[in-house]
Amino acid sequence: MKLATYLANGQRHVGLVDTDRQQVTPIALSPQQTSRGVLSVIELLAAGHPLPATSGAAMALDAVQLDAPLPLPRRNVWCVGRNYRAHAAELSGSVFKNNDNDPSRWPIVFTKVPECVVGPYDEVLIPAGVSSQIDYEAELAVVIGKGGKNITPAAALDHVFGYTVVNDVTARDVQMRHQQWDMGKSFDTFCPMGPWVVTADELDGTRTRVRCWVNDELRQDGLTTDLIFDIPTLIATCSRGITLYPGDIIATGTPAGVGMGMTPPTYLRQGDRVRVEIDGIGAIENRFVGDAA
Amino acid sequence: MKLATYLANGQRHVGLVDTDRQQVTPIALSPQQTSRGVLSVIELLAAGHPLPATSGAAMALDAVQLDAPLPLPRRNVWCVGRNYRAHAAELSGSVFKNNDNDPSRWPIVFTKVPECVVGPYDEVLIPAGVSSQIDYEAELAVVIGKGGKNITPAAALDHVFGYTVVNDVTARDVQMRHQQWDMGKSFDTFCPMGPWVVTADELDGTRTRVRCWVNDELRQDGLTTDLIFDIPTLIATCSRGITLYPGDIIATGTPAGVGMGMTPPTYLRQGDRVRVEIDGIGAIENRFVGDAA
Repeated sequence: MKLATYLANGQRHVGLVDTDRQQVTPIALSPQQTSRGVLSVIELLAAGHPLPATSGAAMALDAVQLDAPLPLPRRNVWCVGRNYRAHAAELSGSVFKNNDNDPSRWPIVFTKVPECVVGPYDEVLIPAGVSSQIDYEAELAVVIGKGGKNITPAAALDHVFGYTVVNDVTARDVQMRHQQWDMGKSFDTFCPMGPWVVTADELDGTRTRVRCWVNDELRQDGLTTDLIFDIPTLIATCSRGITLYPGDIIATGTPAGVGMGMTPPTYLRQGDRVRVEIDGIGAIENRFVGDAA
Repeated sequence: MKLATYLANGQRHVGLVDTDRQQVTPIALSPQQTSRGVLSVIELLAAGHPLPATSGAAMALDAVQLDAPLPLPRRNVWCVGRNYRAHAAELSGSVFKNNDNDPSRWPIVFTKVPECVVGPYDEVLIPAGVSSQIDYEAELAVVIGKGGKNITPAAALDHVFGYTVVNDVTARDVQMRHQQWDMGKSFDTFCPMGPWVVTADELDGTRTRVRCWVNDELRQDGLTTDLIFDIPTLIATCSRGITLYPGDIIATGTPAGVGMGMTPPTYLRQGDRVRVEIDGIGAIENRFVGDAA
């Protein structure tokens, strides 16, 4: 199934998207629950409760405003760096230059603050005066269902609730000058997410196409068969000594084709539109605008 | 004032610690508010509400169980690496070897997950089979009161609610092999915090002594006058393009004297007791034990 968080008639809802991706039907949740979006459903199911029944009429997706499926994750989003072979190569002389030369040894894991998550069609703010190197990173994100610690790769997929699309927007200059990446990845609005979560019974992420367009120009086109660390390995890694919780998000890394890897490097500018599409899930598209703040 | 979160008679309370640090008096909060500890008070004040009145009898601190003042921060804890000059030198050949050679250019900022926060006298779990290089880092932590974005250094201290003590416990091998540090800093129980928050009217952190003992042996003894990036600069840095929220925590870095900097490097073992004391706040002391999980 596909679970979306959306605004309709001035209220936030969580609902089921139909197979044709034309309509969404709300499910019965309290306002406090809908405020946390699909995260509430994940926590209910993880606690052994059944999926709440649908409650109310289906609406056309065109008539609602989609929000990020998890509008405010419970803690920072885990993100994986350098996880597609071709992307490891394209940034080997810049972002990854001081990293271990053998990308297959250990994954690089960093975070984005939960408050930088925005909806699938929301605007992304370019932080004026802070960065002049704004870049996109199309990524398949894993959403954890059942929590756990020291999860083995063999058991890892039992802990997956589903998958969604994120753009791991990055300020390259800030990412590099602070050496640790969390700040350059965490500017307000830097994590567009959506359009919904597809549950693990419909998609397993093992051979999934991840694409990104900037103003209709195809920039990234990768397959998750190229992942250096597959999804079970990433879940096992993130849960070694660290308890994972229902609703945790692990963004699995980006394919080759980011702006920094172009010759010459080409960064996003005000007015650019970035579309990230993942087969079996759907697409998000965000316009980049100046930050008046 | 000093605000503590504590358990007494099976319930969590938030209370005011007296000037002699002998007693604590609860303040009037709902159970939902006390579940979030001092964070609820910070949010109330930031929203313009007055400090709730005391409600109930004072208890001896000896008779209550202190919890972390913010038992579950609202998002990952911001932490600063390499922020005392002597510490920058002691790890220049190991942790900081691939970092920019000039530590005064930009602070290194990473995070710890909120769920690794534990109380001031709780046990810390050594993750068996995951790390054999567990180290301590005594740190003064700034607790944000009034949120904001693009805060200037000149205005930064207006955004400080107060200060507390943390031990930024670190698995050195994990920190280095993943290259980004969040994982090696985020194992369950790796952020002892307390014993309370001292508000900014009592302490400003500009000339504050930070010490750490392992089994009564003094290992770290620093003054915040040695900070490479002072507290206003850190707040300005973390809020550039990233909104800070009431209750955000910024751990300001550790002085020289960590176990990895010793000759030979000396890591913590089961049964070790680590005490971190900061003048004007108080001390936390945690025993390191094996993780049965």
